[in-house]
Amino acid sequence: MSEKTFEMTMLFDFYGELLTDKQREYFDLYYNNDLTLSEIAEAEGITRQGVRDMLVRAEGSLLETERRIGLVKKFAEDGLVLNEIAAIAGDIAGKTTDPEIRTLTEGIIQGLEKLRF
Amino acid sequence: MSEKTFEMTMLFDFYGELLTDKQREYFDLYYNNDLTLSEIAEAEGITRQGVRDMLVRAEGSLLETERRIGLVKKFAEDGLVLNEIAAIAGDIAGKTTDPEIRTLTEGIIQGLEKLRF
Repeated sequence: MSEKTFEMTMLFDFYGELLTDKQREYFDLYYNNDLTLSEIAEAEGITRQGVRDMLVRAEGSLLETERRIGLVKKFAEDGLVLNEIAAIAGDIAGKTTDPEIRTLTEGIIQGLEKLRF
Repeated sequence: MSEKTFEMTMLFDFYGELLTDKQREYFDLYYNNDLTLSEIAEAEGITRQGVRDMLVRAEGSLLETERRIGLVKKFAEDGLVLNEIAAIAGDIAGKTTDPEIRTLTEGIIQGLEKLRF
Protein backbone atom coordinates (compact mmCIF):
# COMPACT_ATOMS: atom_id res chain seq x y z
CA MET A 1 0.00 0.00 0.00
CA SER A 2 1.47 3.37 -1.00
CA GLU A 3 1.86 6.17 1.52
CA LYS A 4 -0.86 8.15 -0.24
CA THR A 5 -3.27 5.23 -0.17
CA PHE A 6 -2.59 4.71 3.52
CA GLU A 7 -3.19 8.39 4.27
CA MET A 8 -6.35 8.48 2.18
CA THR A 9 -7.87 5.36 3.75
CA MET A 10 -7.17 6.79 7.22
CA LEU A 11 -8.85 10.08 6.28
CA PHE A 12 -11.75 8.13 4.79
CA ASP A 13 -12.19 6.10 7.97
CA PHE A 14 -12.52 9.27 10.02
CA TYR A 15 -14.28 11.65 7.69
CA GLY A 16 -15.81 9.50 4.94
CA GLU A 17 -19.31 10.13 6.30
CA LEU A 18 -18.91 13.81 5.47
CA LEU A 19 -18.49 13.08 1.73
CA THR A 20 -21.40 12.87 -0.69
CA ASP A 21 -22.77 9.37 -1.39
CA LYS A 22 -21.17 9.32 -4.86
CA GLN A 23 -17.80 10.54 -3.60
CA ARG A 24 -17.87 7.89 -0.88
CA GLU A 25 -18.81 5.17 -3.36
CA TYR A 26 -16.04 5.97 -5.86
CA PHE A 27 -13.51 6.49 -3.08
CA ASP A 28 -14.36 3.13 -1.59
CA LEU A 29 -14.08 1.34 -4.94
CA TYR A 30 -10.74 2.97 -5.72
CA TYR A 31 -8.96 2.93 -2.36
CA ASN A 32 -10.56 0.06 -0.47
CA ASN A 33 -11.52 -2.30 -3.29
CA ASP A 34 -8.50 -1.48 -5.47
CA LEU A 35 -10.44 -0.95 -8.68
CA THR A 36 -8.75 1.14 -11.39
CA LEU A 37 -10.21 4.43 -12.64
CA SER A 38 -11.17 2.65 -15.88
CA GLU A 39 -12.93 -0.18 -14.06
CA ILE A 40 -14.94 2.28 -11.96
CA ALA A 41 -15.75 4.33 -15.07
CA GLU A 42 -17.04 1.26 -16.86
CA ALA A 43 -19.05 0.03 -13.88
CA GLU A 44 -20.62 3.44 -13.31
CA GLY A 45 -21.12 4.36 -16.95
CA ILE A 46 -19.12 7.60 -16.80
CA THR A 47 -15.77 8.71 -18.23
CA ARG A 48 -12.46 7.86 -16.63
CA GLN A 49 -11.87 11.60 -16.26
CA GLY A 50 -15.20 11.94 -14.47
CA VAL A 51 -14.14 9.33 -11.96
CA ARG A 52 -10.79 11.03 -11.50
CA ASP A 53 -12.43 14.45 -10.93
CA MET A 54 -14.76 12.98 -8.31
CA LEU A 55 -11.84 11.32 -6.49
CA VAL A 56 -9.75 14.51 -6.57
CA ARG A 57 -12.64 16.46 -5.04
CA ALA A 58 -13.18 13.82 -2.38
CA GLU A 59 -9.46 13.77 -1.52
CA GLY A 60 -9.40 17.56 -1.29
CA SER A 61 -12.43 17.55 0.95
CA LEU A 62 -10.93 14.95 3.30
CA LEU A 63 -7.59 16.78 3.48
CA GLU A 64 -9.34 20.09 4.19
CA THR A 65 -11.42 18.50 6.95
CA GLU A 66 -8.27 17.10 8.52
CA ARG A 67 -6.61 20.52 8.31
CA ARG A 68 -9.54 21.96 10.24
CA ILE A 69 -10.20 19.16 12.75
CA GLY A 70 -6.89 17.27 12.95
CA LEU A 71 -8.40 13.98 14.11
CA VAL A 72 -6.03 11.72 12.18
CA LYS A 73 -3.03 13.56 13.64
CA LYS A 74 -4.46 13.25 17.13
CA PHE A 75 -5.21 9.56 16.53
CA ALA A 76 -1.58 8.93 15.55
CA GLU A 77 -0.26 10.85 18.57
CA ASP A 78 -2.67 9.11 20.93
CA GLY A 79 -1.59 5.74 19.58
CA LEU A 80 1.99 6.44 20.69
CA VAL A 81 0.81 7.45 24.17
CA LEU A 82 -1.37 4.34 24.45
CA ASN A 83 1.67 2.23 23.56
CA GLU A 84 3.75 4.03 26.21
CA ILE A 85 1.15 3.45 28.91
CA ALA A 86 0.78 -0.21 27.90
CA ALA A 87 4.57 -0.60 28.16
CA ILE A 88 4.55 0.93 31.66
CA ALA A 89 1.74 -1.40 32.73
CA GLY A 90 3.84 -4.27 31.37
CA ASP A 91 6.84 -3.05 33.38
CA ILE A 92 4.77 -3.01 36.56
CA ALA A 93 3.47 -6.52 35.88
CA GLY A 94 7.07 -7.68 35.33
CA LYS A 95 8.41 -6.11 38.52
CA THR A 96 5.68 -6.97 41.01
CA THR A 97 5.33 -10.21 42.93
CA ASP A 98 1.83 -9.25 44.11
CA PRO A 99 -0.80 -11.13 42.06
CA GLU A 100 -3.39 -8.46 42.86
CA ILE A 101 -1.23 -5.75 41.32
CA ARG A 102 -0.62 -7.94 38.30
CA THR A 103 -4.40 -8.29 37.85
CA LEU A 104 -4.76 -4.53 38.10
CA THR A 105 -2.22 -4.04 35.30
CA GLU A 106 -4.38 -6.31 33.13
CA GLY A 107 -7.29 -3.97 33.82
CA ILE A 108 -5.17 -1.10 32.53
CA ILE A 109 -4.27 -2.96 29.34
CA GLN A 110 -7.94 -3.77 28.71
CA GLY A 111 -8.91 -0.15 29.31
CA LEU A 112 -6.31 1.04 26.81
CA GLU A 113 -7.76 -1.22 24.12
CA LYS A 114 -11.13 0.53 24.50
CA LEU A 115 -9.41 3.83 23.72
CA ARG A 116 -8.11 2.70 20.34
CA PHE A 117 -10.45 3.73 17.55
CA MET B 1 -25.17 26.66 31.86
CA SER B 2 -28.17 24.90 30.30
CA GLU B 3 -27.87 21.39 28.92
CA LYS B 4 -28.33 22.71 25.40
CA THR B 5 -25.62 25.31 25.86
CA PHE B 6 -23.26 22.68 27.21
CA GLU B 7 -23.97 20.36 24.26
CA MET B 8 -23.58 23.17 21.75
CA THR B 9 -20.29 24.42 23.15
CA MET B 10 -18.92 20.86 23.10
CA LEU B 11 -20.00 20.43 19.47
CA PHE B 12 -18.47 23.81 18.66
CA ASP B 13 -15.16 22.85 20.25
CA PHE B 14 -14.93 19.77 18.05
CA TYR B 15 -16.50 20.89 14.81
CA GLY B 16 -16.57 24.69 14.92
CA GLU B 17 -13.85 24.88 12.27
CA LEU B 18 -16.25 23.27 9.80
CA LEU B 19 -18.74 26.15 10.09
CA THR B 20 -18.59 29.26 7.90
CA ASP B 21 -16.78 32.27 9.36
CA LYS B 22 -20.07 34.10 9.99
CA GLN B 23 -21.71 31.08 11.63
CA ARG B 24 -18.67 30.63 13.84
CA GLU B 25 -18.65 34.31 14.79
CA TYR B 26 -22.34 34.45 15.77
CA PHE B 27 -22.14 31.11 17.53
CA ASP B 28 -19.17 32.26 19.55
CA LEU B 29 -20.87 35.53 20.54
CA TYR B 30 -24.07 33.76 21.58
CA TYR B 31 -22.79 30.61 23.29
CA ASN B 32 -19.33 31.53 24.50
CA ASN B 33 -19.68 35.27 25.15
CA ASP B 34 -23.30 35.06 26.31
CA LEU B 35 -24.60 37.90 24.16
CA THR B 36 -28.35 37.95 23.44
CA LEU B 37 -29.75 37.66 19.92
CA SER B 38 -30.64 41.36 20.08
CA GLU B 39 -27.16 42.37 21.15
CA ILE B 40 -25.59 40.38 18.31
CA ALA B 41 -28.12 41.83 15.85
CA GLU B 42 -27.27 45.36 16.90
CA ALA B 43 -23.52 44.78 16.83
CA GLU B 44 -23.67 43.14 13.39
CA GLY B 45 -26.26 45.46 11.88
CA ILE B 46 -28.73 42.70 10.94
CA THR B 47 -32.15 41.67 12.27
CA ARG B 48 -32.64 39.57 15.37
CA GLN B 49 -34.34 36.98 13.15
CA GLY B 50 -31.30 36.97 10.88
CA VAL B 51 -29.07 36.14 13.82
CA ARG B 52 -31.47 33.44 14.97
CA ASP B 53 -31.57 31.84 11.49
CA MET B 54 -27.79 31.80 11.31
CA LEU B 55 -27.53 30.14 14.73
CA VAL B 56 -30.18 27.54 13.89
CA ARG B 57 -28.28 26.63 10.72
CA ALA B 58 -25.00 26.42 12.62
CA GLU B 59 -26.57 24.23 15.32
CA GLY B 60 -28.08 21.95 12.69
CA SER B 61 -24.76 21.65 10.92
CA LEU B 62 -22.91 20.76 14.15
CA LEU B 63 -25.54 18.19 15.14
CA GLU B 64 -25.44 16.60 11.69
CA THR B 65 -21.64 16.41 11.77
CA GLU B 66 -21.80 14.70 15.16
CA ARG B 67 -24.42 12.26 13.82
CA ARG B 68 -21.98 11.34 11.04
CA ILE B 69 -18.66 11.36 12.94
CA GLY B 70 -19.65 10.84 16.59
CA LEU B 71 -16.57 12.49 18.06
CA VAL B 72 -18.31 14.10 21.05
CA LYS B 73 -19.86 10.76 21.98
CA LYS B 74 -16.49 9.04 21.71
CA PHE B 75 -14.87 11.82 23.75
CA ALA B 76 -17.42 11.30 26.55
CA GLU B 77 -16.96 7.52 26.49
CA ASP B 78 -13.18 7.81 26.41
CA GLY B 79 -13.29 10.17 29.39
CA LEU B 80 -14.93 7.45 31.48
CA VAL B 81 -12.31 4.91 30.43
CA LEU B 82 -9.48 7.36 31.21
CA ASN B 83 -10.97 7.85 34.68
CA GLU B 84 -11.17 4.08 35.18
CA ILE B 85 -7.53 3.57 34.19
CA ALA B 86 -6.43 6.46 36.43
CA ALA B 87 -8.32 4.86 39.32
CA ILE B 88 -6.58 1.52 38.71
CA ALA B 89 -3.19 3.25 38.60
CA GLY B 90 -4.13 4.90 41.91
CA ASP B 91 -5.04 1.50 43.36
CA ILE B 92 -1.67 0.09 42.37
CA ALA B 93 0.16 3.06 43.92
CA GLY B 94 -1.85 2.56 47.12
CA LYS B 95 -1.13 -1.16 47.35
CA THR B 96 2.55 -1.30 46.44
CA THR B 97 5.47 -0.74 48.79
CA ASP B 98 7.91 -0.61 45.87
CA PRO B 99 8.88 3.03 45.11
CA GLU B 100 9.81 2.09 41.55
CA ILE B 101 6.32 0.77 40.88
CA ARG B 102 4.83 3.87 42.45
CA THR B 103 6.89 6.02 40.05
CA LEU B 104 5.66 3.91 37.14
CA THR B 105 2.04 4.57 38.14
CA GLU B 106 2.79 8.29 37.99
CA GLY B 107 3.98 7.77 34.42
CA ILE B 108 0.62 6.21 33.63
CA ILE B 109 -1.30 9.12 35.13
CA GLN B 110 0.79 11.59 33.13
CA GLY B 111 0.21 9.60 29.94
CA LEU B 112 -3.54 9.61 30.54
CA GLU B 113 -3.56 13.40 30.77
CA LYS B 114 -2.06 13.62 27.29
CA LEU B 115 -5.02 11.62 25.98
CA ARG B 116 -7.60 14.11 27.20
CA PHE B 117 -8.57 16.56 24.46
